[in-house]
Amino acid sequence: MEEQIDSVGKAFVDHYYHLFDNDRPAMSSLYQPTSMLTFEGHKLQGVEDIITKLTQLPFDQCRRVISTVDSQPALVTGGIVVFVSGSLQLPGENHPLQFSQMFHLSPTPQGNFFVLNDIFRLNY
Amino acid sequence: MEEQIDSVGKAFVDHYYHLFDNDRPAMSSLYQPTSMLTFEGHKLQGVEDIITKLTQLPFDQCRRVISTVDSQPALVTGGIVVFVSGSLQLPGENHPLQFSQMFHLSPTPQGNFFVLNDIFRLNY
Repeated sequence: MEEQIDSVGKAFVDHYYHLFDNDRPAMSSLYQPTSMLTFEGHKLQGVEDIITKLTQLPFDQCRRVISTVDSQPALVTGGIVVFVSGSLQLPGENHPLQFSQMFHLSPTPQGNFFVLNDIFRLNY
Repeated sequence: MEEQIDSVGKAFVDHYYHLFDNDRPAMSSLYQPTSMLTFEGHKLQGVEDIITKLTQLPFDQCRRVISTVDSQPALVTGGIVVFVSGSLQLPGENHPLQFSQMFHLSPTPQGNFFVLNDIFRLNY
């Protein structure tokens, strides 16, 4: 069970950042109308507002390194919480920025997960 | 609603670190048998194991600065997810360490919250 949660968390994180780097509009498949994103304190809700925000972010050609992925079952709901730490190096910058991000994944009737809660922060 | 969530998140964070700094064994009131803590990748479950871990941590006289607290409702459950970033300066160290921590608070029948999920990471 515990290993399965870790695998699902890691697979989700790979998928999320793969879409972020290669096809950001396709991230609409990850969210639903109840989804919330707080990005650097800026709050958004719903697929359209979240995707608009994500596609406007200036991280087009950043070098991302994922340092840690921690996952736990969110027992009441059959969901999973996933916590990521890592660094981002923006084009033309010498020093990477530390970031952390959390996801609360909620199960769908089809047996997949969507992102119910998404919070991103740079760590200065 | 949104402001209320923010207030609950901030009040929880104040309470959590106040107990951490002043009466760590009393943090048992924040957890339940289903609670999980992942501390720097070390996984614990249940009140006793979590409190044992927390009371053994060497952050007795650290200087903590909370930089950000982001909260969102976890809609399905009536819970709240809270995401904290900040820094810790340990005694004798010149440089603070960045950290981030997430909590998934779950409602109790009494109208309070307990910590269902707790994940802590230093950000190197």
